[in-house]
Amino acid sequence: MTVYFDYNATSPLDPAVLEAMLPFLRQPIGGNASSRHAPGRAARAAVERAREQVAALVGAAPREIVFTSGGTEANNLAIKGIAATWRSGSLLVSAIEHSSVLAPARALAAAGWRILEVLPDEDGRIPPERVSAALAPDTRLVSIMWANNETGVIQDVAACAALTGERGVAFHSDAVQAAGKVPVDTGLPGLGLASLSAHKIGGPQGVGALVVDSALDLEPLLHGGGQEGGRRSGTENVAGIVGFGQAAELAAARLGEARRLAELRTRLEQGLSGMPGVEIFGAQAERLPNTVFFAVDGVDGSTLLLLLDEAGYAVSSGSACGSGRPEPSHVLLAMGAERERAFGALRVSLGAGNRAEEVDGFVAVLAERVRLLRGMAV
Amino acid sequence: MTVYFDYNATSPLDPAVLEAMLPFLRQPIGGNASSRHAPGRAARAAVERAREQVAALVGAAPREIVFTSGGTEANNLAIKGIAATWRSGSLLVSAIEHSSVLAPARALAAAGWRILEVLPDEDGRIPPERVSAALAPDTRLVSIMWANNETGVIQDVAACAALTGERGVAFHSDAVQAAGKVPVDTGLPGLGLASLSAHKIGGPQGVGALVVDSALDLEPLLHGGGQEGGRRSGTENVAGIVGFGQAAELAAARLGEARRLAELRTRLEQGLSGMPGVEIFGAQAERLPNTVFFAVDGVDGSTLLLLLDEAGYAVSSGSACGSGRPEPSHVLLAMGAERERAFGALRVSLGAGNRAEEVDGFVAVLAERVRLLRGMAV
Repeated sequence: MTVYFDYNATSPLDPAVLEAMLPFLRQPIGGNASSRHAPGRAARAAVERAREQVAALVGAAPREIVFTSGGTEANNLAIKGIAATWRSGSLLVSAIEHSSVLAPARALAAAGWRILEVLPDEDGRIPPERVSAALAPDTRLVSIMWANNETGVIQDVAACAALTGERGVAFHSDAVQAAGKVPVDTGLPGLGLASLSAHKIGGPQGVGALVVDSALDLEPLLHGGGQEGGRRSGTENVAGIVGFGQAAELAAARLGEARRLAELRTRLEQGLSGMPGVEIFGAQAERLPNTVFFAVDGVDGSTLLLLLDEAGYAVSSGSACGSGRPEPSHVLLAMGAERERAFGALRVSLGAGNRAEEVDGFVAVLAERVRLLRGMAV
Repeated sequence: MTVYFDYNATSPLDPAVLEAMLPFLRQPIGGNASSRHAPGRAARAAVERAREQVAALVGAAPREIVFTSGGTEANNLAIKGIAATWRSGSLLVSAIEHSSVLAPARALAAAGWRILEVLPDEDGRIPPERVSAALAPDTRLVSIMWANNETGVIQDVAACAALTGERGVAFHSDAVQAAGKVPVDTGLPGLGLASLSAHKIGGPQGVGALVVDSALDLEPLLHGGGQEGGRRSGTENVAGIVGFGQAAELAAARLGEARRLAELRTRLEQGLSGMPGVEIFGAQAERLPNTVFFAVDGVDGSTLLLLLDEAGYAVSSGSACGSGRPEPSHVLLAMGAERERAFGALRVSLGAGNRAEEVDGFVAVLAERVRLLRGMAV
């Protein structure tokens, strides 16, 4: 039985979410939400209720929610959708954004756009003054994530959005890791776009949303039947959207969970601090309550990950996304970490299913495996 | 209890498909398919098995399957993904393509591309010689659907792909309505790309695939973590993909279902032929076994749809996609139908759940409602 410590990669579907989805997965319900007959209208009503639930989690208006196939599509829609409304210009992102922000930005670079990447400080924080200093007259969009998926460091989105908005520039925040874990308010002055994902908060994979200020001009990424107010075509994934709505409602109601996770995290970090040569990244910064990103001196993270997996603990060596090729974390490199150290990083991200005994068991096994690896290296 | 006659809009999830999905919706399984720990590897194995199942349905190699969020994304990826590998050029599509082909084409037109639309004959068939005649030296892509979603008319994809391929031009077919209903072979000479959707064949909404010839250069629509061999980034919707695989395997195994549906369709058409002033569109063409698209003289299709809905029959007035605004079918207009007649069209699309008694009941109710409407009009 695996102890799952990788909630930032994906969270198991909450049983209450599955219950909410099942009526839309079981016959006879399951219409096309664009159909005008009774099954279609039932599907439409379910989608619109979920839209209200998701909007409520982040302080948005329901009409601002554009359902997508996930966080990656939401980020691509924000970046490319704004860029497509301009002939040219420059784009400002942080160097520690998720690949689904950085890769579309780099695709725009290939098309002639200028991309500016703002570096974090050594604790993984993006200083708003660096964002301000990097704004150019031709900046069309600024994208700064709400919380980093690897370190869990929470950014000063309010300050970044405000200073960007004052210049009349569109501001996007990838809130995929933050929403449901810490308060996220997409109504912040200057904030025009925010990305969300269902499967990071106990909802199903394959569903997300882009929160879009209704006044913003945005070119769709998917053209077709004109669903989602013309901003995202494609038959709505009714069951998935219903699950996202339910997960959002549960997350909004579980205010005490953040405190419980923070206590578990403190317990884990106290355990780690008893081991020699452990560095916790971003430890001086405000972080998500569930995330610990650390490295152990002289130990390879990939090897440790496999040993922990054998021992029944599922952790990550950073971002789960990608092709599986071991590469050093671009987040740690941007924070100024040495390449060797970045290769040694391990991420524990906690969630609803985790208990104190699991954390204690993990610390004991980790200490033992580190001793083993160090002994072999001697 | 609604009699569901709108399988081309969306099909109810097959109970066997839900059974296959449930282990990936229930805890503790449900990893991120890019994670290297045990839950991640289990997710990866499930995705790869589904890839084989989907590939087998259409005679493709598993490596040619790129999972997407549905048919609309697959069509957008094909059109924009090929176009993005060229600086400029022209695109050849049929005038009766689904909106998720026509709308991306028109978006390219706004970016300077030349779009040529080939008209069908009066039975809804795209004559391959018209495709051949419309090919230009700067044609970069030809897109001709396998079967039309409204009329059910099956196109001569083999001929169109062959003549396109001989000119060294990429060929795409939207096979969303054809796959699982009639034999679809994406290995046809000249065919480089084909779109599939899970929810049209008893699978879940929110999942589809683009079959891509491995030799084709294709720019991704979603950039990010590099999933799907770099062709479509985003965390894989594991449960949805597993459901798609199961639905594909069931469809491939149910060779007898097409004959049963064709018999039901004949029964329905015999019933319709007993009513005065009924025209069945594409009746002279080879069609999907489950689809009947017809109009009744002097009767408004939208009104009839609502009366039938009240009587417990869910049918469509054409494509379910879109904003719900009643507009005449672009397919019928392209076939040369008068606008008035196009407004009167109704589509019945049958599926696994339908029985002969339902067809008989429908014919009786339809005849009664038509008499009612005609009586009111007098």
